[in-house]
Amino acid sequence: MGWFSKDIATMDDLFVHTLQDIYYAENQIRKALPDMVAKATSPALKQGFETHLRETEGHIGRLKEVFRMHGAQEKGVTCPAIDGIIKEANEIAGEVEDKQVLDAALIAAAQAVEHYEITRYGTLVAWAKQLGREDCAALLKQNLDEEAATDEKLTKLAMGGINRKAA
Amino acid sequence: MGWFSKDIATMDDLFVHTLQDIYYAENQIRKALPDMVAKATSPALKQGFETHLRETEGHIGRLKEVFRMHGAQEKGVTCPAIDGIIKEANEIAGEVEDKQVLDAALIAAAQAVEHYEITRYGTLVAWAKQLGREDCAALLKQNLDEEAATDEKLTKLAMGGINRKAA
Repeated sequence: MGWFSKDIATMDDLFVHTLQDIYYAENQIRKALPDMVAKATSPALKQGFETHLRETEGHIGRLKEVFRMHGAQEKGVTCPAIDGIIKEANEIAGEVEDKQVLDAALIAAAQAVEHYEITRYGTLVAWAKQLGREDCAALLKQNLDEEAATDEKLTKLAMGGINRKAA
Repeated sequence: MGWFSKDIATMDDLFVHTLQDIYYAENQIRKALPDMVAKATSPALKQGFETHLRETEGHIGRLKEVFRMHGAQEKGVTCPAIDGIIKEANEIAGEVEDKQVLDAALIAAAQAVEHYEITRYGTLVAWAKQLGREDCAALLKQNLDEEAATDEKLTKLAMGGINRKAA
């Protein structure tokens, strides 16, 4: 969250800024995923990243709807956390030669991304409810559930052979 | 993970580098926590951060033991992800004036840290098992379980009044 001087006075301000943080993050993830699709070797992992790219576009759509419903400015604020997580993912992709080890590293990188989104959406759902915005909470919960499902799918992919082959 | 050119050839290399990544991250968290203790207003949150500071020292101790058991170099490698997550946490602390809103923001920041650790330890436990290092996996699992418990405690603190008062 890139904020200017003391501009967060209320829980509502904090909610909107965190929305803008995850909106930026989702857009960065959308940009990063095609590269992960290209680098993955396992067809199941490649397809998993493709599916998640489409889901990410859906998440961005829901966030736009939440901005509209809440009367808040639809914009992203720079989020050093997701920038750092994606930077690590790119570093991994550049430093691993063996294709199966690379798949294992890509899964780990993608799970770090998912966990960042899970924590932010978890927080946003809670804050939306506390602010009496059940309507926003319901949409944000859909994004949260999809991120959690993606994280589980990645765990299954890792357990189901990719890492085993690489080890 | 800050890596040099193509130096990760095997799953074992990937495991050791990820150990060094979380070792760096735990040390950065240890440095960041006293500031979070100082900034928290709710006595329960302050105490929670203090408890987690002691746990973090325990995690670092267990990581040293894993390095020793695995015959790997005990060192950290720069981890842009945790650096970004902590940078965000510091930005929040600087931008919120109201004490109850600040507590809510600090909880969200701490949960982002926990989720980063949960994903990395989850990956490390799986890889240790695949590499036949059940001994390392058992120690890493203890760290994982404590991070997950801390995340749950933070959720309860958030739900139990801090955010509600701030809203």
